[in-house]
Amino acid sequence: MTKGEVVSNKQVLLKDYVVGIPKETDMVLSTGIIKLKAPQGSEAVVVKNLYLSCDPYMRSLLQKHDRFRFFPSYTPGSVITGHTVATVVDSNHPNFKEGDLVWGITGWEEYSLITETNFLHKVEHTDVPLSYYTGILGMSGLTAYAGFHEVCSPKEGENVFISAASGAVGQLVGQFAKLMGCYVVGSAGSKEKVDLLKNKFGFDEAFNYKEEDDLDAALRRYFPEGIDIYFENVGGKMLDAVLLNMKINGRIAVCGMISQSNLEKPEGVHNLFCLVSKQIRMEGILVGNWLHLYPKFLDFIVPFIKEGKISYVVDTAEGLDKAPGALIGLFSGRNVGKQVVVVARE
Amino acid sequence: MTKGEVVSNKQVLLKDYVVGIPKETDMVLSTGIIKLKAPQGSEAVVVKNLYLSCDPYMRSLLQKHDRFRFFPSYTPGSVITGHTVATVVDSNHPNFKEGDLVWGITGWEEYSLITETNFLHKVEHTDVPLSYYTGILGMSGLTAYAGFHEVCSPKEGENVFISAASGAVGQLVGQFAKLMGCYVVGSAGSKEKVDLLKNKFGFDEAFNYKEEDDLDAALRRYFPEGIDIYFENVGGKMLDAVLLNMKINGRIAVCGMISQSNLEKPEGVHNLFCLVSKQIRMEGILVGNWLHLYPKFLDFIVPFIKEGKISYVVDTAEGLDKAPGALIGLFSGRNVGKQVVVVARE
Repeated sequence: MTKGEVVSNKQVLLKDYVVGIPKETDMVLSTGIIKLKAPQGSEAVVVKNLYLSCDPYMRSLLQKHDRFRFFPSYTPGSVITGHTVATVVDSNHPNFKEGDLVWGITGWEEYSLITETNFLHKVEHTDVPLSYYTGILGMSGLTAYAGFHEVCSPKEGENVFISAASGAVGQLVGQFAKLMGCYVVGSAGSKEKVDLLKNKFGFDEAFNYKEEDDLDAALRRYFPEGIDIYFENVGGKMLDAVLLNMKINGRIAVCGMISQSNLEKPEGVHNLFCLVSKQIRMEGILVGNWLHLYPKFLDFIVPFIKEGKISYVVDTAEGLDKAPGALIGLFSGRNVGKQVVVVARE
Repeated sequence: MTKGEVVSNKQVLLKDYVVGIPKETDMVLSTGIIKLKAPQGSEAVVVKNLYLSCDPYMRSLLQKHDRFRFFPSYTPGSVITGHTVATVVDSNHPNFKEGDLVWGITGWEEYSLITETNFLHKVEHTDVPLSYYTGILGMSGLTAYAGFHEVCSPKEGENVFISAASGAVGQLVGQFAKLMGCYVVGSAGSKEKVDLLKNKFGFDEAFNYKEEDDLDAALRRYFPEGIDIYFENVGGKMLDAVLLNMKINGRIAVCGMISQSNLEKPEGVHNLFCLVSKQIRMEGILVGNWLHLYPKFLDFIVPFIKEGKISYVVDTAEGLDKAPGALIGLFSGRNVGKQVVVVARE
């Protein structure tokens, strides 16, 4: 790879808008060409993509845009975009130079020409795994931090429940809550994940929701005195059961509802009256509202990572060819930890 | 009536716990006797009840207590309690003396012996209708004030929607929002109520939800740019339609869900994912959390009442005999404005 060279560029394209359950074949691999040179007169950057982040929010971008969503969908026939870690091949932008490691929004392809550089950031700490910038040091980390510390108003000793707790965000929320001296319980969908929660992330308790006939009873078992904070990643039946088990003045941060992603009509939630009878605050979080906290978040998290006080589990798929499958796997919970695709290691 | 006298005391008792739709016959009128004397050695007060407040929250107290609610139910065979305006007949309490007008929690009966005086307050302003202390100057008023000004974080020019908008709380929220320079739309269940909203309370628009086949379309008509603030009094289908029409960073104060009160299983709400995609905050309000604001609220509201800048519509039932019917009527929307029962006028 030489600057200015024209090279082939493998890409993942959206074939057509997805209806219902997404499949690997809704995306297609294609090979184009790219000139490794930022066009003169632009402030563009050309990058080589290293790590791709698979995130649940991408599900909604696979389908046709409707008025109930505020991100534009992907375009059929065009490359999927997402959060990545990359290295700069050429730059006309004053903030970036050849060889810089960057993270932000690029394409699911070997090389990307970035004209919108607002979403590109320099990698500040290179003494941690680079893939962390797709997760713990990227949007997942900031989501966990802002969602828990800013939205949930946690206090020492409070009872915290996290669903999809071994996922990219959940595993961090649980560890942040433990660092604050909370009692922390997580749910996940396999024995392996439950073991991770208890043994790797230090949750006080964890359970496999697939083995519980009665989620309300399960929550009562782990929270006989009720839940102060619920970090919501799944929605549907779990939310209904949680509402019954919340304490007065409880808080629910709604980060996602992955159990509902592929349903044509989402399940109904029946116990919302608990919001009134228990004066619960429930708040949706999108990381875009919290970007100003990123420097504060880095100061918070980096020492914990270096001291080994926070763990982060990444599930790695090797090769761009594996990207469609890795993304689809999120919706059946196939991933264990943050799902990342390695396009290249340097 | 003379202090110390033993007199007959008509009362409204709960016959038995209500299951399903409550009926007048779930309550029964009975006549006991009472000595108009506060027992010596106590700090009790004996009052003559004048006005009774009918409130939606009382529905849940008619049924057997379950773990999902934090108020104790009424006891079968015992007198119904609620917010009232009363006059003191005898007092052993230093804060109250014979002849004082008071408001707070007493029984649905002609006379009450009050041993728990924490919920009894002196009437401060006697130059407004006394019945106002069951509504605009009582818990309904404080609920509207705290719910709107504290929970909804309103800003001038924002778009506000209120359901059950002609009710005890809704009519005030709409007027508070207009005073702040918001665009205000209300829904109600009859032409008479819709006329009140537009002509008496100064709402910008109002509609009869019973005449709308498609609530989503109705809301889109009145809010082509979306809703910033929803003051929720009804729940169910209306909430689902509102979620679709909320703007980014919208706020929902959940005051009640009266459409769900009599359902054995509440309707499911399907569009909660909008909380995430639009970063909505949704918060339940119970006035008990906001009692410290009452003096500030009085300073705010009394001048508006005296200057005629805020109207309050009260629906009056005459006589304790009418109390069961007046309470039941709330759940079919029979009342127009705040429902009050007059037991005696002085």
